[in-house]
Amino acid sequence: MTLIDGKQTAADIKKEIAAEVAAMVARGERAPHLAAILVGHDGGSETYVANKVKACEMCGFTSTLLRFDEDITEEKLLAEIDRLNRDDSVDGFIVQLPLPRHIDEQKVTEAVDPAKDVDGFHPVNVGKLSIGLPCFKSATPSGIIDLLDRYGIQTRGKHAVVLGRSNIVGKPIASLLLQKAQPGNCTVTVCHSATPNIKEICLQADIIVAALGSPAFLTADMVKPGAVVIDVGTTRVPDASRKSGFRLCGDVDFDNVAPLCSYITPVPGGVGPMTICALMKNTLQARKQKNK
Amino acid sequence: MTLIDGKQTAADIKKEIAAEVAAMVARGERAPHLAAILVGHDGGSETYVANKVKACEMCGFTSTLLRFDEDITEEKLLAEIDRLNRDDSVDGFIVQLPLPRHIDEQKVTEAVDPAKDVDGFHPVNVGKLSIGLPCFKSATPSGIIDLLDRYGIQTRGKHAVVLGRSNIVGKPIASLLLQKAQPGNCTVTVCHSATPNIKEICLQADIIVAALGSPAFLTADMVKPGAVVIDVGTTRVPDASRKSGFRLCGDVDFDNVAPLCSYITPVPGGVGPMTICALMKNTLQARKQKNK
Repeated sequence: MTLIDGKQTAADIKKEIAAEVAAMVARGERAPHLAAILVGHDGGSETYVANKVKACEMCGFTSTLLRFDEDITEEKLLAEIDRLNRDDSVDGFIVQLPLPRHIDEQKVTEAVDPAKDVDGFHPVNVGKLSIGLPCFKSATPSGIIDLLDRYGIQTRGKHAVVLGRSNIVGKPIASLLLQKAQPGNCTVTVCHSATPNIKEICLQADIIVAALGSPAFLTADMVKPGAVVIDVGTTRVPDASRKSGFRLCGDVDFDNVAPLCSYITPVPGGVGPMTICALMKNTLQARKQKNK
Repeated sequence: MTLIDGKQTAADIKKEIAAEVAAMVARGERAPHLAAILVGHDGGSETYVANKVKACEMCGFTSTLLRFDEDITEEKLLAEIDRLNRDDSVDGFIVQLPLPRHIDEQKVTEAVDPAKDVDGFHPVNVGKLSIGLPCFKSATPSGIIDLLDRYGIQTRGKHAVVLGRSNIVGKPIASLLLQKAQPGNCTVTVCHSATPNIKEICLQADIIVAALGSPAFLTADMVKPGAVVIDVGTTRVPDASRKSGFRLCGDVDFDNVAPLCSYITPVPGGVGPMTICALMKNTLQARKQKNK
């Protein structure tokens, strides 16, 4: 069994990006610039955005954090997005989700210029990903593909079972695994809350991507020996022994499943660290596209 | 075994659309207007476009056919598209594919205003379909969903196996069958040329959508008794006994598979006639959206 080290892989990728950015700057080019909009003071969002800003520093990017109070109007937020769309010094930007209830998240997502949509959430990027065209791939699926790629895992003709049909993980990772590409070319099955026989289907899987958000859902009796298991779950489970009061729990019963696997990602330290890398890759790509 | 009559269902839907259009016109509103661009003189394209014009007449739509010679430049074609995008009297339009080799089909597809893209090929519509947002659904998948719906076929929790991963059939029908909707809520598996064990997977299917373009590919030994079989194949096979010199052959070995099925679509007369209906529905929807 090989433990897929997302933390190390993410560090490697960030170093590669930093080297590329250093070379750009040495050539007299401007460094990539990522802006982030953060509305309100949600604890999770604060952490995520802080980690993104930190990753920008590690990659040699310029970053700008735009903070707004919880009570910002939708109109004002859309005006800020419009300003970032037109600001040539900004290569890409994100609007950290979730947003307060009085703001329409879909409207906000669609207001972002697809050419700066480094989160890959705009329907144009979602559509291009499905069609197989160059695009900004959303972070988690992109990170999973990078892990499969960097670990040299053969995917062609393999049966990949995706648990979960969310717009940000399940659907796009299913699309990517289906494409004529390596990693890709899998037979892909998507299971979800309405699937009656998940165990039976998982037992056929060569690759399982668990993205249900249901702690320890995937148990050893559901996994074929030799399978590759990618755990996307990050549910916060109360844990009095931790300073934070919680621990992150994946969708996989790791201790019992791991011995069966050829490869498995841990939680934390698996897919999680890769997602920010994907954002950095997209921002670098946005910068290069603008250079052209 | 119930034979799904696509021809009759399509006729019913067109009648319903015609009634709605007649009511619109009686209220003093303009009828929906579909324009089609046809480049060159490809036999198949001529037939398809003629059928679309005929369907417009049946539905009470205005239609405009814009014909251009094979040697039209990409620039000139894009200018025509721009003109249609800006023409308020046109609710929706299509550019009949394939286009001559010197024209970039993807560029043309992306030049169409998504709000007039009644073929549903623009990445924005592809992305919205994937996300589950209101959009113009592409014709074949939309027609299949209508057949499942009109025949009251229960899909929730069923295992749907899609054979083929094309951008216009396989991927979007997989997306639609996956959505939280009825028809929908299926566990969905997509198989394709790189799938080594198609037979084994098909035998698990409650619903099979065959869209490989491989005549009589799906044989009786691949189908579970009671399955629903939707045949999207329309390969022209030489047939000296026909006036046309060919007959349309589906992806299903119909004579041997049909007795096993709970429902099956024939070729011709199954999915085929439904695709033009979907185009008419999209055009009507475009007209109504503009009214708002």
